[in-house]
Amino acid sequence: MEPRISLITLGVDDLARSITFYRAMGWTPHPSSVDGEVAFFQSGGMVLALWSRAALAADSGVADTGGWGGVTLAHNVDAPDDVDGVLTSAEAAGARIARVGAPTAWGGYSGVFVDPDGHPWEVAVNPAWQIGADGSVTLP
Amino acid sequence: MEPRISLITLGVDDLARSITFYRAMGWTPHPSSVDGEVAFFQSGGMVLALWSRAALAADSGVADTGGWGGVTLAHNVDAPDDVDGVLTSAEAAGARIARVGAPTAWGGYSGVFVDPDGHPWEVAVNPAWQIGADGSVTLP
Repeated sequence: MEPRISLITLGVDDLARSITFYRAMGWTPHPSSVDGEVAFFQSGGMVLALWSRAALAADSGVADTGGWGGVTLAHNVDAPDDVDGVLTSAEAAGARIARVGAPTAWGGYSGVFVDPDGHPWEVAVNPAWQIGADGSVTLP
Repeated sequence: MEPRISLITLGVDDLARSITFYRAMGWTPHPSSVDGEVAFFQSGGMVLALWSRAALAADSGVADTGGWGGVTLAHNVDAPDDVDGVLTSAEAAGARIARVGAPTAWGGYSGVFVDPDGHPWEVAVNPAWQIGADGSVTLP
């Protein structure tokens, strides 16, 4: 298995609501999305999908006990102001702000928003990680 | 917010066990990993991290009710034999096979393994999605 992730699927309860949220955050569903069933977003060299959480649980062969399951996404940016800007946009779009932007113990700056389906996103500046012109992140 | 994911962190209960599993799957922790605390893996233009699930919940501002939380990762490959090969490796490394490799309703071929901490990975051939030489996936 090569070290790469092709797709992350977030289970959602109301696809239209979730698409509205991610659209408000600046993401545009790809034309190959299936109306009312699944939304795909090209995300750098990978894909983010939104799909029925019940269908995803069945397809993944797991029981869904509800709530958070030990996965957090992160979106790295260049400057603390960018962190605060994304968090402000997220709150305006209906996210819960779980942690306001602030300096971190590891020398960066970050905050967390939680999307309408409970999926947390850390928005972070990590001075040790390089962000390329295409948005890719490279470890030092 | 640009449409990109910089980092996915998987919460784990026993970091050493999880590193052993991902090493067996062919992933090598990056030298910037912090011994006994966190493991980073460069994964194309993004990073996969393994970290204490309890610490991740606290850092993400969410309650951890246990179990699966509506996120499934996928690893796309070129051929059905590659799907079966990854699933065989995963089972040998200690994963649960949640769905054996088989043709899918959407014209592909896939199966699912669940890692030692309950995080599911679909391993898939999707003939409609292009896999680049660098492993990146591009929607049609």
